[in-house]
Amino acid sequence: MGLSEDTKPKSDAYEGEEMVEATGLRQRNKSNGANGETEDNPLSVEQVFESKPVPSWREQLTFRAFVVAFFLAVLFSIIVMKLNLTTGIIPSLNVSAGLLGFFFVRMWTVGLEKWGFLKQPFTRQENTVIQTAVVAAYGLAFSGGFGSYMFGMSSRIAKQATEADDPSDIKDPKLSWMIGFMFCVSFIGLFALVPLRKIMIVDYKLIYPSGTATAYLINGFHTPEGAKLAKKQVKILGKFFAGSFVWGFFQWFYTGGDGCGFSSFPTLGLKAYANKFYFDFSPTYVGVGMICPYIVNVSVLLGGIISYGLMWPLINNKKGEWYPANLSKSSLHGLQGYKVFISIAMILGDGMYNFVKVFSHTLFAIYKAYKNKSGLPITDSDGRVVPAETISFDDKKRTELFLKDQIPKKFALGGYICVAIISIITLPHIFKPLKWYYILVAYLLAPVLAFCNAYGCGLTDWSLASTYGKLAIFTIGAWAGKGDGGVLAGLAACGVMMSIVSTAADLMQDFKTGYMTLASPRSMFVSQVIGTAMGCVIAPCVFWLFYKAFNDLGLSGSDYPAPYAIVYRNMAILGVDGFGSLPHNCLKLCYGFFFAAILINLIRDFTPKNISRYIPLPMAMAIPFYIGPYFAIDMCVGSLILFIWEKINKVQADQFGPAVASGMICGDGLWTLPQSILSLAKVNPPICMKFLSRKDNIKVDDFISSW
Amino acid sequence: MGLSEDTKPKSDAYEGEEMVEATGLRQRNKSNGANGETEDNPLSVEQVFESKPVPSWREQLTFRAFVVAFFLAVLFSIIVMKLNLTTGIIPSLNVSAGLLGFFFVRMWTVGLEKWGFLKQPFTRQENTVIQTAVVAAYGLAFSGGFGSYMFGMSSRIAKQATEADDPSDIKDPKLSWMIGFMFCVSFIGLFALVPLRKIMIVDYKLIYPSGTATAYLINGFHTPEGAKLAKKQVKILGKFFAGSFVWGFFQWFYTGGDGCGFSSFPTLGLKAYANKFYFDFSPTYVGVGMICPYIVNVSVLLGGIISYGLMWPLINNKKGEWYPANLSKSSLHGLQGYKVFISIAMILGDGMYNFVKVFSHTLFAIYKAYKNKSGLPITDSDGRVVPAETISFDDKKRTELFLKDQIPKKFALGGYICVAIISIITLPHIFKPLKWYYILVAYLLAPVLAFCNAYGCGLTDWSLASTYGKLAIFTIGAWAGKGDGGVLAGLAACGVMMSIVSTAADLMQDFKTGYMTLASPRSMFVSQVIGTAMGCVIAPCVFWLFYKAFNDLGLSGSDYPAPYAIVYRNMAILGVDGFGSLPHNCLKLCYGFFFAAILINLIRDFTPKNISRYIPLPMAMAIPFYIGPYFAIDMCVGSLILFIWEKINKVQADQFGPAVASGMICGDGLWTLPQSILSLAKVNPPICMKFLSRKDNIKVDDFISSW
Repeated sequence: MGLSEDTKPKSDAYEGEEMVEATGLRQRNKSNGANGETEDNPLSVEQVFESKPVPSWREQLTFRAFVVAFFLAVLFSIIVMKLNLTTGIIPSLNVSAGLLGFFFVRMWTVGLEKWGFLKQPFTRQENTVIQTAVVAAYGLAFSGGFGSYMFGMSSRIAKQATEADDPSDIKDPKLSWMIGFMFCVSFIGLFALVPLRKIMIVDYKLIYPSGTATAYLINGFHTPEGAKLAKKQVKILGKFFAGSFVWGFFQWFYTGGDGCGFSSFPTLGLKAYANKFYFDFSPTYVGVGMICPYIVNVSVLLGGIISYGLMWPLINNKKGEWYPANLSKSSLHGLQGYKVFISIAMILGDGMYNFVKVFSHTLFAIYKAYKNKSGLPITDSDGRVVPAETISFDDKKRTELFLKDQIPKKFALGGYICVAIISIITLPHIFKPLKWYYILVAYLLAPVLAFCNAYGCGLTDWSLASTYGKLAIFTIGAWAGKGDGGVLAGLAACGVMMSIVSTAADLMQDFKTGYMTLASPRSMFVSQVIGTAMGCVIAPCVFWLFYKAFNDLGLSGSDYPAPYAIVYRNMAILGVDGFGSLPHNCLKLCYGFFFAAILINLIRDFTPKNISRYIPLPMAMAIPFYIGPYFAIDMCVGSLILFIWEKINKVQADQFGPAVASGMICGDGLWTLPQSILSLAKVNPPICMKFLSRKDNIKVDDFISSW
Repeated sequence: MGLSEDTKPKSDAYEGEEMVEATGLRQRNKSNGANGETEDNPLSVEQVFESKPVPSWREQLTFRAFVVAFFLAVLFSIIVMKLNLTTGIIPSLNVSAGLLGFFFVRMWTVGLEKWGFLKQPFTRQENTVIQTAVVAAYGLAFSGGFGSYMFGMSSRIAKQATEADDPSDIKDPKLSWMIGFMFCVSFIGLFALVPLRKIMIVDYKLIYPSGTATAYLINGFHTPEGAKLAKKQVKILGKFFAGSFVWGFFQWFYTGGDGCGFSSFPTLGLKAYANKFYFDFSPTYVGVGMICPYIVNVSVLLGGIISYGLMWPLINNKKGEWYPANLSKSSLHGLQGYKVFISIAMILGDGMYNFVKVFSHTLFAIYKAYKNKSGLPITDSDGRVVPAETISFDDKKRTELFLKDQIPKKFALGGYICVAIISIITLPHIFKPLKWYYILVAYLLAPVLAFCNAYGCGLTDWSLASTYGKLAIFTIGAWAGKGDGGVLAGLAACGVMMSIVSTAADLMQDFKTGYMTLASPRSMFVSQVIGTAMGCVIAPCVFWLFYKAFNDLGLSGSDYPAPYAIVYRNMAILGVDGFGSLPHNCLKLCYGFFFAAILINLIRDFTPKNISRYIPLPMAMAIPFYIGPYFAIDMCVGSLILFIWEKINKVQADQFGPAVASGMICGDGLWTLPQSILSLAKVNPPICMKFLSRKDNIKVDDFISSW
């Protein structure tokens, strides 16, 4: 295949620039003592780490890392599974994975060091490898759909649904086919990731806020002695980490019921709250807002205003006219349908545009590079060549290492095709109604959807895997049609799709972490493969344990109602009715927003930079269409904090802003672990902080005084 | 009378010190430009103001000041009166008085300046004079008892009380006797204040947090150009002022009902909340905690733990044994009785001890000074002479001016005796059952009680005027006995007592402000006299307006229920039963705490300074006995913030701590004005933030879903 975008750039200008930089650094070293740091010229992260050698990709993959990863994967899989089957709401545990990985290996190495057995020091790269493996493994406990589509196939759930409970639409859980299914669908995402990797992280320079925050955390843990600024940053990160964790703990006490606590605080009034406009006191998204560029935050807010501020209330007024008034809230035939399909349409529009753009740029660049016999230059998101002198030392170093251990394109493409063929052959045997051509189409479209989800996640930190899953339920279900197991086909297709897009977003976050901790992409890939393999066994086994242990699993009202299993099955039942069953005008709106997204992108690309930077990003706008604008408000608060901080002290804000943001994200992230454990141990929060209108409060007070 | 403690200190050492300081300052001026300020040696407040001449005390009393004061007095009297008659809860409006005074005179002066008519610039002293007059005037709308004791005498309230509704216990409101009564009782406090002034502010150096905060605010408004540090402080003060105001506004939205909002936040859990242990998110008391010394904050917290954490729960367990179980919450025969009388006993113990100590010290000092023919040296709270070099430039300058325009002791004593004689003759004519010897005794004890209240207020910012009023109701009521108008006598005595102690605390706050803004005590005194005279007319007239306009005034369930009028009458009805009716063991506990307070003071005075500084202050401990420990927790949070700040950056904390605290106190203080206006305009907050236990929440959720 010759040259590929994974090839390490080797143009002379680039190398030369780097050497000048390095010389400059050495000169500073001479004049300013050992660490070469001055007040005016603090060292960047990678300058601080220069003294620490980066191990080769094979050295990054240690045995101890995978032992730790295995145990953490089991722990997190149990937690996620239990949450799957109880509330169905699963928080991100990535930070906990990174943190616990660090502590366990640290204990291990400190222990061995004491006894003199330590052969290899613990590096940040190894830390990243552990986190990647754990995330890959426990991610399957969610994307495997044990609380949603997979369990939705069972007869137990079918009986609770209103219709379509004939045998062709039912597939009861069994350990054997579940593991088989997992192995078939889980690896395909990995191969789709390989080419995306460079596009998302090096070319588009997407933020991946959680990944960035975790990288700051991991870099912080491993910062060598003597780096003043870095130590200060770590200290600040630690403070905000602790603050955010304590805040999470404090909040917890007031969440003793539905709609209780700070996350239901009608900060902007009850009417705004009803339309999901409120600040929910989540340090995570405030931190995310501080890391993301202003235009992203403005875009999500704008999207929130257009959707929840304008469109949904207007469409809601058409209830009974555009769609039946008596539908449940989660029915895709009602308002929920508009939300899901319009946001997906917009994301697809943006995603397709960018996919085509990147694809053509890449082809063009490969062609040019082939003609000139030189390496690929570094290009920005518009495919323009970035002048080498504008790239920071950190970015140079990171890009260099990120592109060093490339995974050959051939290998990626070959792998994708192999896994796809295996899936196409195997899956119809597991699910009779799932025809081989459904899977073929799904795998042809999958890279685009994976691209879309990874792109959106890179901008806003939201992975909309389940939304893409719903899309698959609807399209494949409609294709399969009523009867003949269309419901089962829809649910299975949901699994195929969710696995790919969820992997694409989750693991791209890890790649961002790897990029910023100089972990080799090759070791990351291997770690993901091993982690995924672990997950394919661990997740079904854990589910099997629950399934066998609790006979009322999945029955509503029981301890493990698995609320989303029935929701997914009902969606599939609606899906087989086809696109005709979509609410009125929904498809028209979808077309509109699809093309609007493309149009906005065209305008962005063909106007001068000083105008285009004020044009919102359709991808970022689309996410609150589905989620709601509350997180957009959090992010804008983060933006505002950073903005004011920059006004007051630009240097300080630049130096410590990411540390503060990472601390907030990671502290909140770690709190989810004890929170999950408390919920599993049935330790319920003691107090409900409730918000009532004055009128309702009078009634409630009367009621309370009548006790 | 010769020498008095108001005499200006004229010892050579003192004057000499000041000259050295001034010379030093001039030298700095030379080397560092016009304002003489350097990074390491920032100017103190009075150094900043040195360029501004202090007007003579006559010049401080301008006509415009009293015009503005009159209108503000009317405004605040209406607000307070309406609150008196609706909820009965009256916030402190002192900050608003200072602020509005500033803005009105500023408008006036700016207007005149534009037209070229301005003869006299607006000074901070004039600002203080306005605030003093307004506080003196509208204070009477509260201490006049129009929502409590005075209205409690009326037949309308008597009809609603269970007993004692015969004519001898009733006195219906009438404009003539009310104004007469006000004139009789309101001025006596002013004369009692004169000797207290120097003791509290110069000798004891009490903090008076609100007064200090207002002084910072007023100094901030009038800071001359060019003072770097002072401008920075004003900026910080402004920021926290705005923050605190906005926070008050934000909180307001969530208080749509009883027990709603942040002020009912069970921060430490529901059980702790039931015993008033919680952080109530009040910036005022956090600011107060930052201004007060650590020992005060620790003392109030300790007092709160002893009383609400230990004693009241234990006594509550004796319900039905020590006192009848079926009493209302506000009955002095039940738990409330213990709270009122034990806290008063402790305050009296501490107050008496300090009164006697100060009195003997003063006599001794006068004797010595008389012998040596020299002025009084500056002494600390233990009567020890403070070496001149340890006194800061600001304190020197302020003390000098505070003691310059003295009010002769003779005049104060003469005035007190005159007003007392007039009262003793007049009051029995207004209230038949109030015998002349009751009043005589009250006026003999009044200075001690005024001392106690002013002292406690100086330490913790709480004025317990109504508590002293309750004491008077009980003692004089018991003395007068059942029948023969004992109830009326008790209520009238309450008025006499409340006027004195309330004036003592409120106006001492203003004296602190005056001290820190170099306002002459003589102009302050005149301003207080004029303000009080205004109040004596304004307050009864405003009440009369309400009384005539609303025929259902005072009836429960009406728009103006005046809830405390019936409470006070009921207390008086209980009071006539005498001390025997106090709950079991209450008197014994009172004796115990009275002597404990004296003992603790003795220990404090007779141990070395390095030990005694860790011994708590009984006066500060006593206040949460009645109020509850929640404000102690606020104060300790303030302490903690300051403590951490000092650990991080001592210089910064010292320079900006008081500004931050003042900003918080004043911002919250100003918010009370729009809050009151909103409440009067019947604009109710839209949302109730409610706190329910998980169990209760389930019931409430069931109830709500049944609508």
